[in-house]
Amino acid sequence: MPEVVFSVDQSLSMAAQLVPGHNRWHPDIPAAASVRPGSEFRVECREWTDGQIGDNDSADDVRDVDLSVCHMLSGPIAVEGAEPGDLLVLDILDLGPVPQSAGAAPGEGWGYTGIFARENGGGFLTDHFPQAYKAVWDFHGQQATSRHIPGVRFTGITHPGLFGTAPSAGLLARWNAREQALIDTDPGRVPPLALPPLQQGVLAGTLKGPELERVGREGARTVPARENGGNHDIKNFTRGARVFYPVHVPGALLSGGDLHFSQGDGEISFCGAIEMGGFVDFHVDLIKGGMEKYGVTTNPIFMPGNVEPRYTEFLSFIGISVDHDTDTNLYNDATIAYRNACLNAIEYLKKFGYSGEQAYLLISAAPVEGRVSGVVDIPNACCTLYLPTAIFDFDIRPTAQGPRRADRGACAVST
Amino acid sequence: MPEVVFSVDQSLSMAAQLVPGHNRWHPDIPAAASVRPGSEFRVECREWTDGQIGDNDSADDVRDVDLSVCHMLSGPIAVEGAEPGDLLVLDILDLGPVPQSAGAAPGEGWGYTGIFARENGGGFLTDHFPQAYKAVWDFHGQQATSRHIPGVRFTGITHPGLFGTAPSAGLLARWNAREQALIDTDPGRVPPLALPPLQQGVLAGTLKGPELERVGREGARTVPARENGGNHDIKNFTRGARVFYPVHVPGALLSGGDLHFSQGDGEISFCGAIEMGGFVDFHVDLIKGGMEKYGVTTNPIFMPGNVEPRYTEFLSFIGISVDHDTDTNLYNDATIAYRNACLNAIEYLKKFGYSGEQAYLLISAAPVEGRVSGVVDIPNACCTLYLPTAIFDFDIRPTAQGPRRADRGACAVST
Amino acid sequence: MPEVVFSVDQSLSMAAQLVPGHNRWHPDIPAAASVRPGSEFRVECREWTDGQIGDNDSADDVRDVDLSVCHMLSGPIAVEGAEPGDLLVLDILDLGPVPQSAGAAPGEGWGYTGIFARENGGGFLTDHFPQAYKAVWDFHGQQATSRHIPGVRFTGITHPGLFGTAPSAGLLARWNAREQALIDTDPGRVPPLALPPLQQGVLAGTLKGPELERVGREGARTVPARENGGNHDIKNFTRGARVFYPVHVPGALLSGGDLHFSQGDGEISFCGAIEMGGFVDFHVDLIKGGMEKYGVTTNPIFMPGNVEPRYTEFLSFIGISVDHDTDTNLYNDATIAYRNACLNAIEYLKKFGYSGEQAYLLISAAPVEGRVSGVVDIPNACCTLYLPTAIFDFDIRPTAQGPRRADRGACAVST
Amino acid sequence: MPEVVFSVDQSLSMAAQLVPGHNRWHPDIPAAASVRPGSEFRVECREWTDGQIGDNDSADDVRDVDLSVCHMLSGPIAVEGAEPGDLLVLDILDLGPVPQSAGAAPGEGWGYTGIFARENGGGFLTDHFPQAYKAVWDFHGQQATSRHIPGVRFTGITHPGLFGTAPSAGLLARWNAREQALIDTDPGRVPPLALPPLQQGVLAGTLKGPELERVGREGARTVPARENGGNHDIKNFTRGARVFYPVHVPGALLSGGDLHFSQGDGEISFCGAIEMGGFVDFHVDLIKGGMEKYGVTTNPIFMPGNVEPRYTEFLSFIGISVDHDTDTNLYNDATIAYRNACLNAIEYLKKFGYSGEQAYLLISAAPVEGRVSGVVDIPNACCTLYLPTAIFDFDIRPTAQGPRRADRGACAVST
Repeated sequence: MPEVVFSVDQSLSMAAQLVPGHNRWHPDIPAAASVRPGSEFRVECREWTDGQIGDNDSADDVRDVDLSVCHMLSGPIAVEGAEPGDLLVLDILDLGPVPQSAGAAPGEGWGYTGIFARENGGGFLTDHFPQAYKAVWDFHGQQATSRHIPGVRFTGITHPGLFGTAPSAGLLARWNAREQALIDTDPGRVPPLALPPLQQGVLAGTLKGPELERVGREGARTVPARENGGNHDIKNFTRGARVFYPVHVPGALLSGGDLHFSQGDGEISFCGAIEMGGFVDFHVDLIKGGMEKYGVTTNPIFMPGNVEPRYTEFLSFIGISVDHDTDTNLYNDATIAYRNACLNAIEYLKKFGYSGEQAYLLISAAPVEGRVSGVVDIPNACCTLYLPTAIFDFDIRPTAQGPRRADRGACAVST
Repeated sequence: MPEVVFSVDQSLSMAAQLVPGHNRWHPDIPAAASVRPGSEFRVECREWTDGQIGDNDSADDVRDVDLSVCHMLSGPIAVEGAEPGDLLVLDILDLGPVPQSAGAAPGEGWGYTGIFARENGGGFLTDHFPQAYKAVWDFHGQQATSRHIPGVRFTGITHPGLFGTAPSAGLLARWNAREQALIDTDPGRVPPLALPPLQQGVLAGTLKGPELERVGREGARTVPARENGGNHDIKNFTRGARVFYPVHVPGALLSGGDLHFSQGDGEISFCGAIEMGGFVDFHVDLIKGGMEKYGVTTNPIFMPGNVEPRYTEFLSFIGISVDHDTDTNLYNDATIAYRNACLNAIEYLKKFGYSGEQAYLLISAAPVEGRVSGVVDIPNACCTLYLPTAIFDFDIRPTAQGPRRADRGACAVST
Repeated sequence: MPEVVFSVDQSLSMAAQLVPGHNRWHPDIPAAASVRPGSEFRVECREWTDGQIGDNDSADDVRDVDLSVCHMLSGPIAVEGAEPGDLLVLDILDLGPVPQSAGAAPGEGWGYTGIFARENGGGFLTDHFPQAYKAVWDFHGQQATSRHIPGVRFTGITHPGLFGTAPSAGLLARWNAREQALIDTDPGRVPPLALPPLQQGVLAGTLKGPELERVGREGARTVPARENGGNHDIKNFTRGARVFYPVHVPGALLSGGDLHFSQGDGEISFCGAIEMGGFVDFHVDLIKGGMEKYGVTTNPIFMPGNVEPRYTEFLSFIGISVDHDTDTNLYNDATIAYRNACLNAIEYLKKFGYSGEQAYLLISAAPVEGRVSGVVDIPNACCTLYLPTAIFDFDIRPTAQGPRRADRGACAVST
Repeated sequence: MPEVVFSVDQSLSMAAQLVPGHNRWHPDIPAAASVRPGSEFRVECREWTDGQIGDNDSADDVRDVDLSVCHMLSGPIAVEGAEPGDLLVLDILDLGPVPQSAGAAPGEGWGYTGIFARENGGGFLTDHFPQAYKAVWDFHGQQATSRHIPGVRFTGITHPGLFGTAPSAGLLARWNAREQALIDTDPGRVPPLALPPLQQGVLAGTLKGPELERVGREGARTVPARENGGNHDIKNFTRGARVFYPVHVPGALLSGGDLHFSQGDGEISFCGAIEMGGFVDFHVDLIKGGMEKYGVTTNPIFMPGNVEPRYTEFLSFIGISVDHDTDTNLYNDATIAYRNACLNAIEYLKKFGYSGEQAYLLISAAPVEGRVSGVVDIPNACCTLYLPTAIFDFDIRPTAQGPRRADRGACAVST
C-alpha cells in the first residue's frame, strides 16, 4: 500500500481532521502534503457532503442538505517541481470505498443516490421531479444493490467525481467574473444559473480568520468543471486511467474527492452517482511545458482505464432537441436532446412497475452510457442513452408479449 | 441473399431508376414495395447526395453541392399489417458498400467525408472552418484509409445514417409548424436554423404533376431526426442492431439510406461520415400496440449490434460550456461543451502536423465516441470525445518527449 | 472490390473450373496466379468437400462423403519476390459466403455442420457419437440459425479454416516420414492415426498424367496444420487478422480455402464449423528474412482481428485429464481434459431437451472458447469450454428452479 | 466489509494462526467456521507455500522450497444445509492482496513468479528450464511491474487458484487409487507423475496425534484439480465470477487459497502466477439436488466475471503436436501443442533481448490466453497462445525493420 499523504477518520467531519481539507478553489489554501514526481501515494476522502446523508429510508436528509460545505475535498497536495504550463500526469492506480470497515459514513459498506429538491440543488430533470428522493445502495464487493430499487444489480464503475489543480489568482478572477455575468442574466432563478463565492460553510485547510474569510469571498465553488479539471463527474476516470491536468500555480496543488461507487453518464440527478467516501491511490509525474507542447489550453485530457465493467447488450433511448410537451423546436440543443433520452428511458421503465423517481435514480447511478450521437442535423440534436440490459434480474427487452409489470417497491421520499 | 425489394443501378441517378425513391417525408408517397412481418429483404441505396461528389482531389464538388435533392432515400416499403401505434421491429442483418464493384459512385470501393461551406450546409464547427474541404477514403475490406489524411487506418463502424417510417399528415403538419416557428426567430441566419419544405429538387417516387408539387410544398426535409426516426446518424446502428420504430401510418412506410462506412459520434462536419451507397439487409417484425405497451411516444428505441470494432485505448478530450475566446459562460449547454471537446482534439492533432481541416475530417469520420459526461454541475455541462489511439500508425499519446510532428499532407480544398 | 486472382463458379466442381485448384500440399503444383507485395486481391473458394453435402434433412451425404478429394483448395498464388526464410504477411481484409447468391452449394445462403462417422473421418468424440449427423444452418446476414437446433441464434465468427504456403521438397519428405512413423505404431486403427499420401481423388491444378500421379504419391494430405500453416481451424483468423506465414519455396505459393461461417475452439466434430464456400480478400506483404529475425522456425504467428462477435457472459465447463468412466488417471493430458469439458457441456445441454448429437453439433459450430486453463497441476491438466449464454433464446444458466426442459427437435441423421 | 470467517495474521505461519487451516483434502478435517446460504463472508489466505519465498534477488528460496506443506489452505467452511448432490453457488464478490499493508509476506504489496527446479516441483517446460528462477512483482494498484522483467506492465486478472469442497471418503479413496495406479507406471520419474499422500508437513486444522496422522496417510495432495474443484488455476475466477461446486459431504466444507494477482492460461511455470496472500469475499447459496438437475457429475461449472482486464490486440503463437527437435509426430496431443506454442513465444521474445527464463516467467504470469484451437485435424492438435501487445512499453509486433533488441536485465537465479 502506498504512503497515505492525506488521511481521514471517517467518524469525524473534515473540519475536525488532524489535517483538514477544503471546499473552495483558491490558490492560497496551503498545501496539506507534498509529493515527488514518480511517486505513488494514497489520498483518503470524505463523501462530498461530509457525511450529511444517512443509511435510512427517508429523503429528508437529502432535502435539508447544507450545500455550502460541498464538495468537501482532500488536499491540496503539492507536487515538487510543478510549474505553470506543465501537465500533471496522474495515474489512478486504485480506488474504492472505505476499506475494512462498516459504519455510518457513506463508503463504509454502503452509498446513496439522491434527487435534490428544486429549491436546494435541483437536477437535470428538476422540472419533472422537484421533490427530494433517495436510494441507498449496499456494496457487495464490486457490485451494488438497493432495497429502494429492487430487481437490479450491477458492477460499479468506481471513480473520483472531482480532482483538479489550483487556479492561479488570475484564472480564479476570470471564473468569478464570467459566472457572475451569467448569474446576472437571471439573478432570481431557482435553481440558480451558477453559484457565486460564499462565506458560509467555507473550509480552507488550516486557514483561519481574515485569510479564511478571503477564501470565502474569493474562492470558486466546486460544482462545475473548469480549466483546472474539477468536478468532471466523468465515470471513466476508473482504475487504470491517466489524467493530464494543466498546472496553473507552482506545485500544481492537487485536490479532490467526491468518490463514486458508480454513475451513469451525465450523473443526471445531480447527486446522481452512488456517493461514498474512500481512498484513491495515485502515481504522479510531470510533462514539463506540456500545455504548450500538446496544445492543452483549457481542460485536461485523459486516457480511460481498461477494467471498466463491460456490458455488451444495451437497450438505447433516443432524444432530440424538441420540447415535446409544447411542440417547440430548439436549435441543435444537445442538453435538451439528452434530457428527452432520459425521459424516454424513465417512461419505458415505468411500464415495468418502477416509479418515475426510481427510474430516475437508477439511470443516474447505473453504468449507462450517454452519447452525443448527432449534432449537425439541424435543427435537431440527437443524443442517446444506453441502458445495459444485464443489470436487471428480469428481461427488459421489448417483446410481442409486452412488459412484465410487477411491484417494484419504492425509493426513500421526504416528508 | 435475401430478396431485393428496392434495387438501385449505381450508374444512374435515383430519378432514373426503374422504381425511383424519394427525398422528402410525406405520407402520400406511394409504396415502392411491400413486405410481410417475419420476412428478410434487401434494400439498395444511393449515396445521400445521389452521387454529386467524386473521387478526386478538389472540394469544389462539396462546395457546390445541390442540397435540395438530399437525402436521396430508398423506399417507401410497406409492411403488411402495420398500423399506427405499433412498433416496427427492424433487425439490421447485414449492410455494406456496393458489392462486387469498382466505379465512380461513392460506395464502389471508396467514400468521402466533407466539410460543407458555411453558405451551403455548414457544420458543427462552421465558424472555425467556413470553407469546403474533402477527404476521399479507400475501402480495404472492413478498413479505410485516405490519401488526404495519411497515418490513419481504422475499421469502419458501418451503419445507415437514416431510416424511418412515414409521418401521418397530422404529425407532418406539427413538424412544419414547429420548425417554421424556429426559423422565424432568425429568418436570415446563415446557415439557417432549420430547413422548410422546398419544391426545388423534390422527388417522390412515381408521383408527378400536382401530387409531386404538393409533396414539395408539404414534405418535411430529411435532415433532422424526428418522431419517425429519420436522420439519426447514430453510428451504433450496425450489423446486428435492432431498432423499434414508431408506426404513424398504415403500412408503416419504411424508407432510408445515407449509408456510412464509418462515423464518429456527432458526425460533426455535417457530411462527417464516410458517405457511400450500398445495401442493407433487414428482418422485419411488428409489436402490435407497442407504442402504448412500452411508453414509446416520441423517438424509436434500439439495441446496438455486437460486431462493432472494439477499440480499448483512447485519448479523450474534455469540453465545458464556456466560450473560451470571450470567456463567456453558457448555462449547462452540452452542445457547446461537445464543440469545445472537438476543438480541443483538433488543437491536439495539429501538434503532430495535421492541418485543422484534416483533424476535423478525421474526428468526423473515425469511430470516436462522444459522451455526455456531466449535465448537472452548473453552470458547466461537460462532454468528452474519445479518440482511439490504435487508428494512428504513430504514437499519439502525450509523453515527456512531446509530439512527433511530421508532414501529414493535405486534404482536398476548394478553389 | 479487389481483383479476383482465383475465381470459382459455384455450380461446378473444382476440377471443372477454368483454372482448377488442388487438394494436396506439394511444391510442384504450378501457380494459378501471381501477385505483388503490397497488393490486394480476392480468392474465391469452394466448400472443403467440393460440394458433396446438401441442404436437406438426411446425414447420408455426410456418412458417405468422399474424403479423398478434401480439402479442395484455391491456389497456389505466387507472391513475387518471396524467398525461403521470408515471412509472408497476409491481412484478411474481408471474407464471407458466396456474395449475391442463393443456391445449392454450401455458402449460397446456407452452410452445414457434420458429425462424421467413425469409419469415415471420425471426430473428437467419435467414441461417444460413432454415427453420422448433420445440422444445416441458414445465414441471416452475420447471424446463423438451424432448423436442426432450434432455440439458438448467433453471430458468426467468419474465418478461413485453412491457408498456407507450399512446403519445400525436403519439408514435405519430413512430413511424410514422421506421419508414416506414427501410422506404423497402429496401422489398422479406425479412424487412422494419420493420413498418408493418396492417389485417389488427387487434383493438382493443371497437372496431368505422370506429374499428377507424382503429386498423388508424394503430396501431403491437407488435414493437419504443419510448418506451412495449413488447416489451423483457428476461429480467430477473422476479418482484420494478420498472419505471418513462413516461406519455404520461391514465390511462397499460397493456397487455401475451407471457409467457415462460424466455429467453436477445437472444431470438435471434425467437420465442426459451419462449412461454406465463399471469398477472401487479402493484402499481402513480405518481411524479408523474417523467420530468422523473429525466431519463427515452425508455425506461423498471427494477430487476431478486432471485429469478432463479443459475447461477455459465458457458462463454462471444466474438464480434467481423468477417464471418468474407468476412473483412470492420464498424465497432464490436455486433449482428454478438453474432451471432458466438451462432454460435460453436452450432458448439461441434454437437461434442457437437446439430444447429445444436437449439443455436440452446437458446441462445434457456435463461437465457444476453449482454454488450456492449467497444464502444470499434475497429474490433471485442466481445460475449459466457454459457452456464450446469449446465443440461446431461453435462459441456460443454473437456477434453483432447475433447467427448462422442452422439445428441441432433432438434427439430421443417417439411414 | 463482510464478516471475516477465516482470518490470517500474515506475520505468522498457518500452523500458528488462532484457527489454523489445512494442506490436504480429507472429509474429516473439522470445519473452522460455518455460514448460512444467502450470506456474504470474507476468507483471508496465506500465500500457497505459507510464506517461504522472499522479496529478494535470489531464486534459492524457490529451489529449496518445502512442497510438503503446500497448498496452505484456509477453511474448511461449513455451509448450513448443504448435502451431497447439491451445487454450492459461490459468488466471488471481491478479492485482492493483503489490504492496507506492506510487509515481508507475499501479498503485502508484492508477489512473485517462480520456475521450480526439475528436482523439486518442475513445470511445463522443465526439460528446457531445469533450474530454479524467480521474478518479484511490485503491485501498483491493479497493475504489476517486475524489476526482473523490465519493459512490462500489466493489469492483473486477480483470482483464487484453488477453492473446492471436501471429498467424501469414497471419492477420496478413488482419487488415491487412480493416482497411485498412474504413479506405478513409472515410479522413479523426476518429476513424479503424481503426488501420493504424504505425512511430512501435513496440517489439518486443529487435528492432532493419530487423527492428524490419518489425514497425512489418507489425505489427497492439493496440486491437481479433481471432482471437488480444487486447484483449477483458472484465471477467469475473477471478481464477479460465479462457481457451482459439487457437494460431496454434509456441509460442503469449502476450503481454498492460492491467490493470484495475475496468471496466464496454463500457469505454465507451475508456480506461474503472481503468487500472493490476501482475501476473498464470497456470497454463498445452494441449488438443492443441483448435480442431478444439471448433469454435473464431475467438475464444477462456472460463469466468469465481467471486470477482467480487456486487452484487444494480441500477438499469437501456434503450436502443433509435433516434437520438432526429433521430428516425431504425436497423435492429437494438445499438451504438446500448447507446449510448442509456449516455446515459440519464448523464442520470439528472446529476439528482443529477454532471456529464455524471463520470457518463460512472463508468459506464465501475464494475462495471456491459451486456446485449444483445433483437436480434430489428425494427427496434429493445434493450440495457440495469445500475448497482449499492450503490456510492453515497446512495440513487439513484427515489422520489416526487425525486432528492437535491448538489454532487458535478468531474473533472479539460484546459486
